[in-house]
Amino acid sequence: MVNLCSDNATGVAPEIIRAIEAANAGTAMPYGNDDLTGQVEAKLSEVFETEVTAFPVGTGTAANVLCLSVMTPPFGVIYCHEGAHIHVDECGGAEFYTGGVKLCPLPGSRGKIAPDTLRAAITGVGEPHHAQPATVSLTQATEAGTLYTPDEVAAIAEVARTNRLNLHMDGARFANAVAALGCSPADVTWRAGVDALSFGATKNGGMSAEAVVFFKRELAETFAYRRMKGGHLFSKMRFLSAQLQAYLQDDLWLRNARHANAMAARLVEGLRALPGADLVNPVEANELFVRLPEAVIAGLLDRGFRFYRWGGPTSTEVRLVTAFNTDPADIERFLQAAHALAASHGKTGAALAR
Amino acid sequence: MVNLCSDNATGVAPEIIRAIEAANAGTAMPYGNDDLTGQVEAKLSEVFETEVTAFPVGTGTAANVLCLSVMTPPFGVIYCHEGAHIHVDECGGAEFYTGGVKLCPLPGSRGKIAPDTLRAAITGVGEPHHAQPATVSLTQATEAGTLYTPDEVAAIAEVARTNRLNLHMDGARFANAVAALGCSPADVTWRAGVDALSFGATKNGGMSAEAVVFFKRELAETFAYRRMKGGHLFSKMRFLSAQLQAYLQDDLWLRNARHANAMAARLVEGLRALPGADLVNPVEANELFVRLPEAVIAGLLDRGFRFYRWGGPTSTEVRLVTAFNTDPADIERFLQAAHALAASHGKTGAALAR
Amino acid sequence: MVNLCSDNATGVAPEIIRAIEAANAGTAMPYGNDDLTGQVEAKLSEVFETEVTAFPVGTGTAANVLCLSVMTPPFGVIYCHEGAHIHVDECGGAEFYTGGVKLCPLPGSRGKIAPDTLRAAITGVGEPHHAQPATVSLTQATEAGTLYTPDEVAAIAEVARTNRLNLHMDGARFANAVAALGCSPADVTWRAGVDALSFGATKNGGMSAEAVVFFKRELAETFAYRRMKGGHLFSKMRFLSAQLQAYLQDDLWLRNARHANAMAARLVEGLRALPGADLVNPVEANELFVRLPEAVIAGLLDRGFRFYRWGGPTSTEVRLVTAFNTDPADIERFLQAAHALAASHGKTGAALAR
Amino acid sequence: MVNLCSDNATGVAPEIIRAIEAANAGTAMPYGNDDLTGQVEAKLSEVFETEVTAFPVGTGTAANVLCLSVMTPPFGVIYCHEGAHIHVDECGGAEFYTGGVKLCPLPGSRGKIAPDTLRAAITGVGEPHHAQPATVSLTQATEAGTLYTPDEVAAIAEVARTNRLNLHMDGARFANAVAALGCSPADVTWRAGVDALSFGATKNGGMSAEAVVFFKRELAETFAYRRMKGGHLFSKMRFLSAQLQAYLQDDLWLRNARHANAMAARLVEGLRALPGADLVNPVEANELFVRLPEAVIAGLLDRGFRFYRWGGPTSTEVRLVTAFNTDPADIERFLQAAHALAASHGKTGAALAR
Repeated sequence: MVNLCSDNATGVAPEIIRAIEAANAGTAMPYGNDDLTGQVEAKLSEVFETEVTAFPVGTGTAANVLCLSVMTPPFGVIYCHEGAHIHVDECGGAEFYTGGVKLCPLPGSRGKIAPDTLRAAITGVGEPHHAQPATVSLTQATEAGTLYTPDEVAAIAEVARTNRLNLHMDGARFANAVAALGCSPADVTWRAGVDALSFGATKNGGMSAEAVVFFKRELAETFAYRRMKGGHLFSKMRFLSAQLQAYLQDDLWLRNARHANAMAARLVEGLRALPGADLVNPVEANELFVRLPEAVIAGLLDRGFRFYRWGGPTSTEVRLVTAFNTDPADIERFLQAAHALAASHGKTGAALAR
Repeated sequence: MVNLCSDNATGVAPEIIRAIEAANAGTAMPYGNDDLTGQVEAKLSEVFETEVTAFPVGTGTAANVLCLSVMTPPFGVIYCHEGAHIHVDECGGAEFYTGGVKLCPLPGSRGKIAPDTLRAAITGVGEPHHAQPATVSLTQATEAGTLYTPDEVAAIAEVARTNRLNLHMDGARFANAVAALGCSPADVTWRAGVDALSFGATKNGGMSAEAVVFFKRELAETFAYRRMKGGHLFSKMRFLSAQLQAYLQDDLWLRNARHANAMAARLVEGLRALPGADLVNPVEANELFVRLPEAVIAGLLDRGFRFYRWGGPTSTEVRLVTAFNTDPADIERFLQAAHALAASHGKTGAALAR
Repeated sequence: MVNLCSDNATGVAPEIIRAIEAANAGTAMPYGNDDLTGQVEAKLSEVFETEVTAFPVGTGTAANVLCLSVMTPPFGVIYCHEGAHIHVDECGGAEFYTGGVKLCPLPGSRGKIAPDTLRAAITGVGEPHHAQPATVSLTQATEAGTLYTPDEVAAIAEVARTNRLNLHMDGARFANAVAALGCSPADVTWRAGVDALSFGATKNGGMSAEAVVFFKRELAETFAYRRMKGGHLFSKMRFLSAQLQAYLQDDLWLRNARHANAMAARLVEGLRALPGADLVNPVEANELFVRLPEAVIAGLLDRGFRFYRWGGPTSTEVRLVTAFNTDPADIERFLQAAHALAASHGKTGAALAR
Repeated sequence: MVNLCSDNATGVAPEIIRAIEAANAGTAMPYGNDDLTGQVEAKLSEVFETEVTAFPVGTGTAANVLCLSVMTPPFGVIYCHEGAHIHVDECGGAEFYTGGVKLCPLPGSRGKIAPDTLRAAITGVGEPHHAQPATVSLTQATEAGTLYTPDEVAAIAEVARTNRLNLHMDGARFANAVAALGCSPADVTWRAGVDALSFGATKNGGMSAEAVVFFKRELAETFAYRRMKGGHLFSKMRFLSAQLQAYLQDDLWLRNARHANAMAARLVEGLRALPGADLVNPVEANELFVRLPEAVIAGLLDRGFRFYRWGGPTSTEVRLVTAFNTDPADIERFLQAAHALAASHGKTGAALAR
């Protein structure tokens, strides 16, 4: 079965499974007071070329909502793209963890917020009737499979800084972004003005590990208490830290991401040649959004290929997500099936059209 | 190094590590829509001899606070023992997840709430100035290493039912309790009147897996939304479910617990003979609270044995916790060292006394 | 000074001040256990021709957010117009009181939600990632100075009922709406499907009194606790109840509203004849939104007339709000000044245009 | 009817009613942007002999919980006496407004916290499992009718400062305290180390007005937003401010309080001579707690005197509260009735005893 539903439908990278096994030797002090956990922060500081304060957590939503909770007072506003995971897929977690902030969803082509759109949305400062502008959250790679360049991040950061907003980056697919941009992780985060990052590992070969990485380190002061209060402090923390260590070791995170991105690029190439296929967004990381003829979609689903229609059960836009371990042969199988269906449908369609 | 600090200082049981590895084959639908997760609920229903609704989560605190949040309105009171984990060790998680309930800590010898104490604390019903009695939470095994018998649970449940309170059980060490009581899991839970259970696995050989088990199933209706909102829905859920499956398979949970309990019993036996040792509570599961001569404590710590002084850095009460994989040789080593220290101290003391 | 900024810039109606004085005689049991408070619910039941459960509170925001908090679980969605007070003017109060719901702001011409817009926005039911559709809130009269007819309310209610949503009405200017519609209060509330109403008095002659009125009475069960927890239970409640009693007595609420509406109608009539004036919305109650020539706006403000530019400091749209005690002579003064300014400006403009 | 149930069973002082009427002239900008509101802060600064930042609110609970919410992070602990209003009479308002703090109720004779008791309760600093010590709240006058002297406040403040805790004072009966202590308001607040005060007016002649007074003014920065978010910003604010202005004018607050205190002193004097009467606490302000023979209690209640049994429906301890307008003749009537009942009961008792 070829499953392109999501990169979280995959298992765990072998390097990471082995690291979990290795971490199982002996006893270790709980709640992060083990050796491995201490090393994660150091390793992240090395990767980001600056001293960071970092905390492992178990889910991407936990990373996002805890991070936002230290950046945003209860009466604050968090600006994000209208398609952002924190807005549409976390069941109001940010609102809960902050004590009732408002999320302000912004439109923007290709899943990205434009600086002018953000600037125009910042209103009501100092007026008690209005929730107060506090935080911007960018998603990198975006929910549309596109990327913010370092310059684009910096342009948003400039608006944030001018308006005294904190800048968060939801990096559930941060590895795919860095791998595709070919820049240093620092360039697209703190050097561009990002204050804190939800650094994802789960979708890219981890089992259940993300790190909240603070570049503006004073934001981290109360994080440990909020993580505990939210039920997100793991007693056997070493098993989260082991995942993160292996993920960062020898650039596994980037190697995994490059593979996923390459598989997506191969899909794009194959679908470009497909009659009736129409890419919705440029494919810059490991997600494709593409309109396909209904007969092709239905035929692929019939043949056991798994992916989501995007926007509802009758939509002819589909999302295809590749992962660190996507088998190139599966991609070829998918493309061959799609082409065969399109060809067959083309004939029928032509016949019908006569 | 012999580490008796806590049962969460241990690693993961080999059966469970193997189950994690096995779960890693192929793709699986995320967020609990995988086969393994479906089986966990069925298996728990079998273990508890009744249809239950169950949800895997990653930490014991998550299990407790999410469970309490569906049982208790924001203006409610949760009654618990003054030493309960939900009161003293979860940084106000229950207060957060419920929107600001009050916990009412009750005194009680040996870590247990007496029915009369509970009954007397239920006041202010129907009076808007007072937070409203809503929920009772028992810990089984207790934080004092003791157990509620089925009859004791039923007596508390009777007070709860009479006063229309929900009854929660924090079973972080539920396996140790059931193994020691020798009763069926049903007898000490729903048959005795428990509505929902935080069913622990992590401390007893799991990596990061607990299940919230609802016997009063209508309480579970909103759980899935609250779990997501709290950031506790794991995308690669199968790896939590695999832990729980292996934990329940062939009574691993009870076998592990019996071992831990047996190690504790051996410790008790060995310490009974130690001059100056004084057990604080009867040892009914896998935790010992014992007063020891300062010289013995200091000597053990010097020799690399690890455990906690209980009640502060100068306390001469210590907590010793055994686990599923505690090596009997380590227990013997600990006892020999303790006896040697006591003997040496005894002589010195005697010498000084002359 | 003629102040048309808001109906809350006015003082208190003489009948209500007298009622406050009258209530001051003797002692009375606090927290609503006085005679007057008991009578308010009965009087509201009479006005609404059905048994209601009602609670006095001190502000409109308190009425709204407390009411929404009993209708909406923490993981819920509240649908409202994008201009609704609960969305743009209450600093996230609804999000706070509910434990973090999402407000879903809907577009709609003339300040009103169309049933189809609502229907299309109801998505994600049963999907834990998404906040769950729970409540609809209508504003009557709307923030645009328009009205929902009973049929329009019923059409929204039909969508709500079909989707098992509660229906709230923010009636900060409910009196103005009922006075203008000429219908019975019941027709535009419970008979049309409204479950609970924030019944405003403050803007229409009260000092600081609103009533939360439950038609679906089971929703009221926990209200008293939530009101206290929010700090909204007044010890000397009789002074709030006295306001509400006087407000309802001999139809004072409708008489006051009719006067305000008539003053608004006179303004409309006078401004229709003004060159360059352009009504933004039909004026159906006591609020006008009108575009005026900048010279007229600036001139009026210079001459001491007070009102708000709507949409920012350079907007040439203004809001004019009349009240229960607006002096007809003030309206004439305003219109004369506006016409004089327009005439003078017209000449200048014409001169310049040549 | 003589009502000694509470000082909030009274009406409003004539000076304050007149101020409300006077405030009703003309229009005024809403939400505190009126002249009167500006003057309240200045007047409070004068009264307290230092620049304060102050906010009117409508209830004592609102004052307390909003004030505590800017002093205490969600993961904080608030220390208070076990009988404190914030702990037992506000339905968990502090827990709600802070996002789930823990209140730590402390025992203490005569309604007061001893510095050593506080010091001993401050534990777990820096340990994420434990809610973090954040705030101390004193009640002045206490719930037991006693007072903290300036030295006693300073001793608590010293513990607070040493441990970096904020110090709040619940001054629902602050006027009674200052009147009885005979000190300056500054001496018992900021000069003694208090950071913020809930300055009560309602119980002492107001209708529905309290002020939150910040001495540590940086604590006030976010107050305006939190007040709005809580629904506690009054549109016609001038009517709250008018109450506070009149209350502070010509020392009305102190004159009112002196009367109430004198009436309490007269009660004490009269009850001292009553056989079987036993004062529970020294009476230092306007509340008496006294044990009386059951026959006296029952007889007084039968004769229409109103007051509360303290501690339950069969308690023979009663609370008697005097107020700004307690009629001395009512006190005499109460005492005469009590003495008559005691005498009659004494004879019967004696007769029976023979």
